[in-house]
Amino acid sequence: MNKTLNSLPRRQMLAGSASALAAAGLATFTRGAAAAGETPVASATPKPLPAYVAWKDPASVIVHSSTTIETKRAAFGSGVITPAEQLYIRNNLPAPDASIVADRDAWQVAIEGVKAPRMLTLRELKTMGVETTAMVLQCSGNGRGYFPSKPSGTPWQVGAAGCVMWTGVPVRVVAEALGGVVPGAGYLTGTGGEKLPEGLDPLSIIVERSVPAAAMADALLAWEMNGVPISLAHGGPLRLIVPGYTGVNNIKYIKRLAFTAKETEAKIMSHGYRISPPGGKGEPSQPSVQEMTVKSWINSPAPDAAGVRAGLVQVQGVAFGGLNGIKRVEVSLDGGKTWNDARLTGPDLGRYAWRQFVLPARLPAGSHTLASRATDTAGNVQPEQRMENAGGYNNTSWADHAVKVTVA
Amino acid sequence: MNKTLNSLPRRQMLAGSASALAAAGLATFTRGAAAAGETPVASATPKPLPAYVAWKDPASVIVHSSTTIETKRAAFGSGVITPAEQLYIRNNLPAPDASIVADRDAWQVAIEGVKAPRMLTLRELKTMGVETTAMVLQCSGNGRGYFPSKPSGTPWQVGAAGCVMWTGVPVRVVAEALGGVVPGAGYLTGTGGEKLPEGLDPLSIIVERSVPAAAMADALLAWEMNGVPISLAHGGPLRLIVPGYTGVNNIKYIKRLAFTAKETEAKIMSHGYRISPPGGKGEPSQPSVQEMTVKSWINSPAPDAAGVRAGLVQVQGVAFGGLNGIKRVEVSLDGGKTWNDARLTGPDLGRYAWRQFVLPARLPAGSHTLASRATDTAGNVQPEQRMENAGGYNNTSWADHAVKVTVA
Repeated sequence: MNKTLNSLPRRQMLAGSASALAAAGLATFTRGAAAAGETPVASATPKPLPAYVAWKDPASVIVHSSTTIETKRAAFGSGVITPAEQLYIRNNLPAPDASIVADRDAWQVAIEGVKAPRMLTLRELKTMGVETTAMVLQCSGNGRGYFPSKPSGTPWQVGAAGCVMWTGVPVRVVAEALGGVVPGAGYLTGTGGEKLPEGLDPLSIIVERSVPAAAMADALLAWEMNGVPISLAHGGPLRLIVPGYTGVNNIKYIKRLAFTAKETEAKIMSHGYRISPPGGKGEPSQPSVQEMTVKSWINSPAPDAAGVRAGLVQVQGVAFGGLNGIKRVEVSLDGGKTWNDARLTGPDLGRYAWRQFVLPARLPAGSHTLASRATDTAGNVQPEQRMENAGGYNNTSWADHAVKVTVA
Repeated sequence: MNKTLNSLPRRQMLAGSASALAAAGLATFTRGAAAAGETPVASATPKPLPAYVAWKDPASVIVHSSTTIETKRAAFGSGVITPAEQLYIRNNLPAPDASIVADRDAWQVAIEGVKAPRMLTLRELKTMGVETTAMVLQCSGNGRGYFPSKPSGTPWQVGAAGCVMWTGVPVRVVAEALGGVVPGAGYLTGTGGEKLPEGLDPLSIIVERSVPAAAMADALLAWEMNGVPISLAHGGPLRLIVPGYTGVNNIKYIKRLAFTAKETEAKIMSHGYRISPPGGKGEPSQPSVQEMTVKSWINSPAPDAAGVRAGLVQVQGVAFGGLNGIKRVEVSLDGGKTWNDARLTGPDLGRYAWRQFVLPARLPAGSHTLASRATDTAGNVQPEQRMENAGGYNNTSWADHAVKVTVA
């Protein structure tokens, strides 16, 4: 481990990594490494879409940097599934070369921590089993933009999230086919296939994360997103999908899946994505950012919506529970003083997906603060206040996500 | 009505319409009118995508003509929802000018046959209510390509279908808001907003269809498909969605929605889309092509799949019941002699959507005929044989949809 980098606060640490990369003659990685620090970017002038995501809809997204792209709140429709062209991007390292999706079936992943460990090709995985799961994919830092403390990192509002459909082979099926998990393996550890710069301790930069082994019950090694082969930008040809866990735990271009006794010692696990006290830095003793919890927000009317007219309005949004389904969504038209039960609409895609909700409301002319508050099937209620933390993670505050709309 | 055209068989009639259009100086309509006859097109050389659907994925579709575009069987993924870039196109007339989607909220639809009939803008509709429904959209002629009689019309195989998510206001909500349906209205009649050529009887060419008024229970006036505003190619800014009914009943660019005592006298209703005896022609006395019935097919392995290797294979496909959900899917590996229960996978999007199914199977090297047979929740079983008819409609035969695959 690079102790020098370890001892720096997160923003400086990652800026340090970028400098180290540049010093190592790896200028092409600099932008990615800077993005790994999610440095806030002034967005006065809209940035163009980077080439690897040129197929995204420019009108639906906010380009923060080449590796951090947010869906506009007003672009979220009511179709439950977020189209790929609108889905956010957040890469910890630049995507590998597009050559890895030229022959998808040849992609290899090492399966370790099973009785008969071996390398499997995507072609082989496809013969082993298939399941399709809809789930909310959400960046750990979604909602960071509402922290008054302005934590280091992309100031996402609501758009570092989407609900997408993944198809692949269940991880438990793969483990069973290889003789089962070895005793004592408490974690499922995934390693990304990004190209690492030479001259750095790999653990300081590699994208490798561990989740509790129990998460394998619903985890997938996925090759399709929304019915088509996963794009390079979203982790194709093969991505680990851990439903209910924040985006970083869903390892892109996965090249190794291991059942391990301990969490990985990669910095992105040991020091990154930790719930640190305000002003502090990430440490292994702190809670890791993993499971998502109950959250909702209003998409329509959007805060910047023009032309909302007095009278009947359909207040719409999304709600999800992380590991649990959604039982109830309430909507307030007066900034949280009083609440009304909203109706859940559209198909229920299962407990990991989000639900659309709607409240028909008569709004008079003037300014209104609309808020939503979700309750999951376990009875957990979305909190009013964010949990303050240095990284600006896991913001589920309904107050932060309230929208002010002007009705003419 | 144009009696001369009426008395001609369908293919000649529509060729006649094209000639009449050309004679009227409306050459720009000729190609569309020809397509309305769904003239089979030799497809030795792949045709490029027409400009209005240039955003489709060329690798996923077969361009039969500028208004008839099919999804390749091998392109159907397992994501349940068919992405817009892959969804088939079948327009009875050329799409209106793109200017109609420039200011979507200004689109107007006349609501008639209610106690307080009036014109409503899309902006107003959006305030009235919202629902999202997943449903199979399928051309009446999907599977026509398997009729040995080679009926006039596009020889679709399986790809004139998709499962898509529609968002809009329920028709029943609109009717209630306008005082309710007038007594004696047995039909819901929708009129498309295509520009009609002058010099022809409008009834001979207009896209206007009637469905039983009871269908309004789940019908929508929809403005979103798959979470984004409906593209012009798929009927935006506003489309009538009648879940469980074939594509033609889902009126694009709808400009009039009327509760009527009788079916429309438009030719596309009175003589088009009728179940005529082989060699016959459409007549109002014959059954209309409306509700879909139980059907399934295998998408993977596709008949032209290369590199299917001996051993374990995941046989996958889709099944839907039209008005009913799916209870069971069986798969045969021996051309229909013996059957095995497949497993339904992925989320259940409701009774109008299709379900994905999978059967893990060990296939030895050689040639195999794989077939699927679905049963809906009402107990209806997908038939072995097609129902012969002149138009090549409603082909649900499992034998016709069987796939021959070669295993190496």
